[in-house]
Amino acid sequence: MNFELHPQLAADTLRIGALPLCEVLLMNDARYPWLILVPRRAGVREIFELTDEDQRQLQRESSTLALHLAQEFSADKMNIAALGNVVPQLHVHHIVRYRSDAAWPAPVWGKHPAVPYTAEQRAAMETKLEKILREVAARIARSGSGI
Amino acid sequence: MNFELHPQLAADTLRIGALPLCEVLLMNDARYPWLILVPRRAGVREIFELTDEDQRQLQRESSTLALHLAQEFSADKMNIAALGNVVPQLHVHHIVRYRSDAAWPAPVWGKHPAVPYTAEQRAAMETKLEKILREVAARIARSGSGI
Repeated sequence: MNFELHPQLAADTLRIGALPLCEVLLMNDARYPWLILVPRRAGVREIFELTDEDQRQLQRESSTLALHLAQEFSADKMNIAALGNVVPQLHVHHIVRYRSDAAWPAPVWGKHPAVPYTAEQRAAMETKLEKILREVAARIARSGSGI
Repeated sequence: MNFELHPQLAADTLRIGALPLCEVLLMNDARYPWLILVPRRAGVREIFELTDEDQRQLQRESSTLALHLAQEFSADKMNIAALGNVVPQLHVHHIVRYRSDAAWPAPVWGKHPAVPYTAEQRAAMETKLEKILREVAARIARSGSGI
């Protein structure tokens, strides 16, 4: 069985790039810088269904991404979550939160409809995130891991 | 600086026990089997603030706990999340979700007020969770990790 991105994730997000284990997606919602990591493993719903090595790599990619997002976007808090009640394919949310954002201090899910990026916002966001992703990938490579 | 459990977490939960890195707490809300892991590290708000070794151990404890909860409670889905918008001390939610539960498919936070366990429910839950925790601890010990 080959990995294929769930159509709902494909519809809701913009693809930014890839890390050794995960696809890196941007939720098309301009209210929050909101990245999603999706391990390229077919048929996986829960983190514990990954091999131990994949679990370690997911942790590494998630944590490195969260660190760089927090720094580059001056987050007040990062929200990291694997829920999957609606889309069963394992995906991990990484959301930059601000005390001033639309949902604070509540979680972001199900609050209000998403506000899609304009073309201009999207281009600026993609440029910024591609740079962040290069730095994340470099840091992961330096840590001597990668799979 | 010594680790001390945040008073809000202490107020909202019942302590079940400990794993090598984390305190294991039961959210006092009978609507969902809802465990919280809190690494015994002072002053930590984000997963990426933990050392690499602690991050690996948190992943191991989280994943092993989630696996056992999913099995013992016949979960439809596990929800795993580190949010911390209200209580800044790093804590990771592990929530057993059912298609029939009060909030499904939405996340559980902020939906309705918690429904505390009755004394009888609480005793039964503690007995069951202490058994699960022993199995989780044994599996972690067998994996040759532990810190």
